[in-house]
Amino acid sequence: MVGTIDFYFDFSSPYGYFASTRIEELAARYGREVQWHPMLLGIIFKSSGSMPLTMMPLKGDYAYHDFERTARFHDIAYRRPPIFPVATQATARAMMWIQANHGEAKAIEFAKAAYRAYFYEGILIGDGDNVAKIASDLGLDAEALMDGINSAEIKEKLKTDTEKGMARGVFGSPFIIVDGESFWGFDRLYQVEALLKNGKI
Amino acid sequence: MVGTIDFYFDFSSPYGYFASTRIEELAARYGREVQWHPMLLGIIFKSSGSMPLTMMPLKGDYAYHDFERTARFHDIAYRRPPIFPVATQATARAMMWIQANHGEAKAIEFAKAAYRAYFYEGILIGDGDNVAKIASDLGLDAEALMDGINSAEIKEKLKTDTEKGMARGVFGSPFIIVDGESFWGFDRLYQVEALLKNGKI
Repeated sequence: MVGTIDFYFDFSSPYGYFASTRIEELAARYGREVQWHPMLLGIIFKSSGSMPLTMMPLKGDYAYHDFERTARFHDIAYRRPPIFPVATQATARAMMWIQANHGEAKAIEFAKAAYRAYFYEGILIGDGDNVAKIASDLGLDAEALMDGINSAEIKEKLKTDTEKGMARGVFGSPFIIVDGESFWGFDRLYQVEALLKNGKI
Repeated sequence: MVGTIDFYFDFSSPYGYFASTRIEELAARYGREVQWHPMLLGIIFKSSGSMPLTMMPLKGDYAYHDFERTARFHDIAYRRPPIFPVATQATARAMMWIQANHGEAKAIEFAKAAYRAYFYEGILIGDGDNVAKIASDLGLDAEALMDGINSAEIKEKLKTDTEKGMARGVFGSPFIIVDGESFWGFDRLYQVEALLKNGKI
């Protein structure tokens, strides 16, 4: 039996974005499925006392430079967003609503479009109207999506799912759990690949 | 002109240890020299408000597992030290004294031995006597070294060098600066190599 790859990420995480451009093809190479888990790092940071890299003393300039250099190195379309970070409740809830109502494939299509909108096109995905526009460009019903985003059910699900992730040890983005092993960071994908390839690491 | 690779590290940093096992051969492949800069992360953490990964809420277990898994993956001899982290003043000062009195090559030999002692043999390098033993096993005069470690000059130099590193943007271990580019982390060595190989990144 081959296990699902659990892919946890926050829509405001550049390394999460980088991983999102690779995870599906990586999984496909080894016959695996990916379960995408949008989450709110903000909730986790409240418990861990952490914060975005760019806000950490001494690390800010380095972090922005590393985002750009790492994207260039891996040939990922990236431009520094006009505002960073942004609140990602609307985007995460939208993805969850699409997962529930239109299936995982459509939700992944949305996630990739939203990530690219923010980290390449400079569209502020903290804004619900921008999120609705991204969804409607994919043929989704923007009004129904907005109702979904604002429903108590989806709001609760995002909170609960984030807490479930934390309970499994998730503390950053991207965070990958597969075959009982946990990996934090875009720069651990080579180890994820080794595990998928060799069955152990 | 080919520039020197400035390699900053703390002797209590596992990823610094991992990088120390690779940096010389990496530099040699591209005709570069490495300048080793032992420093005190503790001083930097006071400014950055950071702390060792293993002490961060939620991250501790993951960090220990990642040390072990990453070492195994890269075929680096590693065993979890009995106490982590340890104070590294004595080791860093010893290396500086050897650099000043016996040259860089001997100092690097010492640094590698000290790192391996701590991260593989379980020897607590926070203890000056253990540091002196490591040095004397390399044919150095332990008594002269202890005098050096305790001299005001070396103490001051370690503090000053750490501050000079900070002024260049160093905030973690390992930290590499070469040709005007800064890289944080063992997991950026592939980018350092690309820079050395292609002359740009």
